[in-house]
Amino acid sequence: MLLAVDAGGTSTRAVALDTAGAASGYGRGSGGNPTSAGVERAVSAIGGAISAALGSATAGSADPPGHVALIAMAGVRSAEFRELLTSTLAGLGVQRVVLSSDLLGIFGSGTYRPDGYVLVAGTGSIAARIAGDRVERIVGGNGWLLGDDGSGFWVGQRVARAVVAALDDAGPVTALTELVLAAVGLPLTPGSAGGRARALSGLVARLYAQRPVQLAELAPLAFAVPDDPVARDILEQAADALAALLAAARVPEVGGPVVAGGSVLVHGLLAGPVEVRERLGLPAGTEVVPVADGVVGAAVLALREAGVTVGAELFERVQQEVARVRLSR
Amino acid sequence: MLLAVDAGGTSTRAVALDTAGAASGYGRGSGGNPTSAGVERAVSAIGGAISAALGSATAGSADPPGHVALIAMAGVRSAEFRELLTSTLAGLGVQRVVLSSDLLGIFGSGTYRPDGYVLVAGTGSIAARIAGDRVERIVGGNGWLLGDDGSGFWVGQRVARAVVAALDDAGPVTALTELVLAAVGLPLTPGSAGGRARALSGLVARLYAQRPVQLAELAPLAFAVPDDPVARDILEQAADALAALLAAARVPEVGGPVVAGGSVLVHGLLAGPVEVRERLGLPAGTEVVPVADGVVGAAVLALREAGVTVGAELFERVQQEVARVRLSR
Repeated sequence: MLLAVDAGGTSTRAVALDTAGAASGYGRGSGGNPTSAGVERAVSAIGGAISAALGSATAGSADPPGHVALIAMAGVRSAEFRELLTSTLAGLGVQRVVLSSDLLGIFGSGTYRPDGYVLVAGTGSIAARIAGDRVERIVGGNGWLLGDDGSGFWVGQRVARAVVAALDDAGPVTALTELVLAAVGLPLTPGSAGGRARALSGLVARLYAQRPVQLAELAPLAFAVPDDPVARDILEQAADALAALLAAARVPEVGGPVVAGGSVLVHGLLAGPVEVRERLGLPAGTEVVPVADGVVGAAVLALREAGVTVGAELFERVQQEVARVRLSR
Repeated sequence: MLLAVDAGGTSTRAVALDTAGAASGYGRGSGGNPTSAGVERAVSAIGGAISAALGSATAGSADPPGHVALIAMAGVRSAEFRELLTSTLAGLGVQRVVLSSDLLGIFGSGTYRPDGYVLVAGTGSIAARIAGDRVERIVGGNGWLLGDDGSGFWVGQRVARAVVAALDDAGPVTALTELVLAAVGLPLTPGSAGGRARALSGLVARLYAQRPVQLAELAPLAFAVPDDPVARDILEQAADALAALLAAARVPEVGGPVVAGGSVLVHGLLAGPVEVRERLGLPAGTEVVPVADGVVGAAVLALREAGVTVGAELFERVQQEVARVRLSR
């Protein structure tokens, strides 16, 4: 049995499948990244997701367990993490643990081909060039303070700054004001100058009281009022910033599709009114493939790890199988 | 005896003067703002500066002390701060403590006239309209995360982001790279791709290890290479951001000079190659008066508090007297 895991910062997804690509179980857990969740909680989340995925799969099986787990994840993996992970998963019948890149997981969720690009905009943003099934170059991913152009934080901070400026009469009036004040639980009718000043100081106090990166939570508000000139300007700038990130990863020798991940890009920009595909400035005919997460890609990587060649037909089967077990759970 | 105090975030300045504007002593202390330094340390800094200013002044005097202290400062003043301040200064012979605005202190350092504008860009940025010796409107000052356009943080963050992008091959090459790496103590010769990658990860690690607002310390580097296109672009954008801040404070009915404060504006932008005065878009003939701090203005406010009218002649005397005691100390 193969176990394919997409261990993200906020949630972890696991699927159990055989070497023919038939999936038998699906499980979810909390954030499985040791950098953000801590080693013990990350291992526990991964173990929980695998256990849930195996739940139905092992019920009818009499074979001795000897599973291989492939885990797609970002960031640094300490020896401590690897050891705790290996021993914890051994208790679930996992004989071998293979760690891979979250970027390969996302890429493999969109295509079985060996070359192409990844562009992700969630809370942060990052682009990568994939060549011969390997990550050849990474651009961005430098965090909210120093990078992450076009990301959820980047959009959310611009939304917050635009509303602060508007309440301060130092920027244009925007429909975002009402949405942001509602989002932080402040009164919605700052009619008088005094009311506006109170709303401003209340908003500033609340936003500084939280972690800076939480400004990313305001990003969806920009997509809620795409006809607002201030919101639209922010979204166009975000699209251009992501285009620049992708352009920095591109080389003429490497073609292939652009696999798009992250909620800001997939559910926001690509689904919204801003012409993101045009702004990305891609060569004619380049496919842009939005994906929800990296779990299909983790399954593809697990199959390859087991020596299985994944072509168009098997890739399509894996996609359908993952969708099926995800829904039936 | 009047005691005029400019209590800032990083340092506090005090001058002792009589009602004719003759200064007799000058003192300095650490940060005197209770919001940033804490109540006890702020009061101690203000007391220390006053004590130093009184040092020479009281030595030959036989009169019983009955000084008035006027303290120009930003931010919220709690009852706790006022009480500790009053009791501490009473021990130095201060009979009455008057708290005033740091913006009026800066404005009064540049002009004795009742109307005009203040524009400050230090670590943060703020603009104000002064009418009839009172602060009529404040724009900006919303901190590094939500405002402070054109400030030291704003410039410093753009410098850091430009260098991160350059090292990531995702932005133009810039002379800032060498300066920033030297400033954080990293090797200066990232010749190879591997060396650049190490410099990038080292820089990112060091900048995230400090408080975000410390990025303001990188702002002076932009002024060090004004011919660098990346640096120049940042400085021009900063000038435009400050112009927008000032424009939001302006009304046609209120004329008068623009008093400029804060090291980024006074020692950086106004002294540099960017044509800031032109970019501010001021009415023809508007005077822009750079000032070092708010201590002259605090002296002007103290004189007014004592019932003295400050006109051109007395204002000039106060300026000269403060400069004299500052130098002779």
